[in-house]
Amino acid sequence: MKPYVLGIDIGGTNTVFGIVDARGNVIASSSIKTQKHTNFEDYLNELHTEAVRLFEANDAVDKIQGIGIGAPNANYYDGRIDNAVNLPWPSLPLAQLVSEKFGIPVAVTNDANAAALGEMTYGAARGLKDFIMITLGTGVGSGIVINGQVVYGHDGLAGELGHLIVKRNNGRLCGCGRTGCLETYCSATGVARTAREFLEARTEPSLLRNLEIEAITSKDVYDAAMNGDQLAKDIFNFTGTILGEAMADMTVFSSPEAFILFGGLSKSGDLLLRPLKEAMDRNMLAVFKGKPKVILSELKEADAAVLGASALGWEAK
Amino acid sequence: MKPYVLGIDIGGTNTVFGIVDARGNVIASSSIKTQKHTNFEDYLNELHTEAVRLFEANDAVDKIQGIGIGAPNANYYDGRIDNAVNLPWPSLPLAQLVSEKFGIPVAVTNDANAAALGEMTYGAARGLKDFIMITLGTGVGSGIVINGQVVYGHDGLAGELGHLIVKRNNGRLCGCGRTGCLETYCSATGVARTAREFLEARTEPSLLRNLEIEAITSKDVYDAAMNGDQLAKDIFNFTGTILGEAMADMTVFSSPEAFILFGGLSKSGDLLLRPLKEAMDRNMLAVFKGKPKVILSELKEADAAVLGASALGWEAK
Repeated sequence: MKPYVLGIDIGGTNTVFGIVDARGNVIASSSIKTQKHTNFEDYLNELHTEAVRLFEANDAVDKIQGIGIGAPNANYYDGRIDNAVNLPWPSLPLAQLVSEKFGIPVAVTNDANAAALGEMTYGAARGLKDFIMITLGTGVGSGIVINGQVVYGHDGLAGELGHLIVKRNNGRLCGCGRTGCLETYCSATGVARTAREFLEARTEPSLLRNLEIEAITSKDVYDAAMNGDQLAKDIFNFTGTILGEAMADMTVFSSPEAFILFGGLSKSGDLLLRPLKEAMDRNMLAVFKGKPKVILSELKEADAAVLGASALGWEAK
Repeated sequence: MKPYVLGIDIGGTNTVFGIVDARGNVIASSSIKTQKHTNFEDYLNELHTEAVRLFEANDAVDKIQGIGIGAPNANYYDGRIDNAVNLPWPSLPLAQLVSEKFGIPVAVTNDANAAALGEMTYGAARGLKDFIMITLGTGVGSGIVINGQVVYGHDGLAGELGHLIVKRNNGRLCGCGRTGCLETYCSATGVARTAREFLEARTEPSLLRNLEIEAITSKDVYDAAMNGDQLAKDIFNFTGTILGEAMADMTVFSSPEAFILFGGLSKSGDLLLRPLKEAMDRNMLAVFKGKPKVILSELKEADAAVLGASALGWEAK
């Protein structure tokens, strides 16, 4: 067993990668722009050059056991990404191409599954065998762990809880083409949509009315709520309630010991967590009442994506 | 390894038990009335006497490897039943008491998980590693299999998909005390409730209007639909649509290869399956579209409960 793995997180904007040891220390990390190359071969060449530079600078050449990659729509079983609409090369055999280039085994999964693996290996989920990771970012992602194993499902693509339908009629249009998905309400962009809806539907004053309505972000809503703005607080109540209701539904499926929240919105503190926990409790089936914990991620956001992907590197064959 | 297991299905009305061999042949079976004894010790004495009689009549004394029991709310981990409202003794350490009485290892789980195990061991799910069993009886139960293992969750009680909330507002009151649960719509009793609602809300003639409205059963609705009654057909469309929508939601969780339907309502054929499959397809997230199969149970209903419970008997330690 070699001492390091390389973790790569391919996001829509940046590709972040780092050398990680078995204790979860990020020895060194770097990044390149994902969108710079429309041709995957050019992208891979740059990634390889930069990674080798990192290996050389950190005495890690020939010391990399495996490469783990987290990427949108990445399939654990066949190593492919398919229909990844935010990437310049939406469909290709990612694991195979990276493995051939580096001469190192590669395993891939989607970003939220990678986050769950990272949390289980190095973070708040150490020692937990049954938990659900929910990533609250631009979208809502999830990684489900049952009996100590990430749930990949029959086709390698399980765990898309951001696309649970939480509003069956008149729901918001989702990027997936359907309506009413959890992520249209409980992502950062969902919070901004709620802000626009509330500002149009209601008439009371609000700090948010000082802003350009189309440019309002979830951060603006957070800042207003922290300044005592009632409409902004109501937006968090609405968001937390929907997420808590959905989490009660998720519980009847796999009865997790804990939900682990990750991503920008999870840092909203009690603004989000109080209505979330109240809704979860109010909607929980009696046998599960009071059981699932709600825990915030312990991974540093800057390192989390790389750590999560790297955890998969130890499994690569 | 001894050649037989004893499968016991404890239902609200009957307790059915049978000697089963490793190929899933029910060598012999019998039953007693569950409600006859309000005292569990008396019940267990009768069960033991009748089971031993069965062993003796079939040359199976000292040939029983283990006992598997399916019972409402039975917990795989601690062997207990708790809050089983349909049983005369709602809370007790079931596995321990039965094991002490018989001198044979006992494993327990809830009835739907037992059905999933039976289907995986002897029925339509042979060879499947990822599937969801849905039992459409008086209630709606479920057994979830991921990576070849029944999902028990952190507390041994996972897989209560009959209590997914499918109608968040103005949903029907469920036996669990909440409103809008899947089983209030898609169980046999749910179909009867829909019939009463439709008959009151609509005015067109229907064969169902010849029946005492409070006494209408799902079988009556089936018979009317088979005789071409449009209102009865609409009841099945309504039921199948809600179930198909819920199954699309279940798919984003664990991406199963198949759903296996079991129980009286599943025998309604295309009356139920056509709207179910249409709704499932219409509501399916793109990456899963067309993937999960819908399969009817292959177990004979009379044997299924015993077979399912018996499959667990091989695991008993």
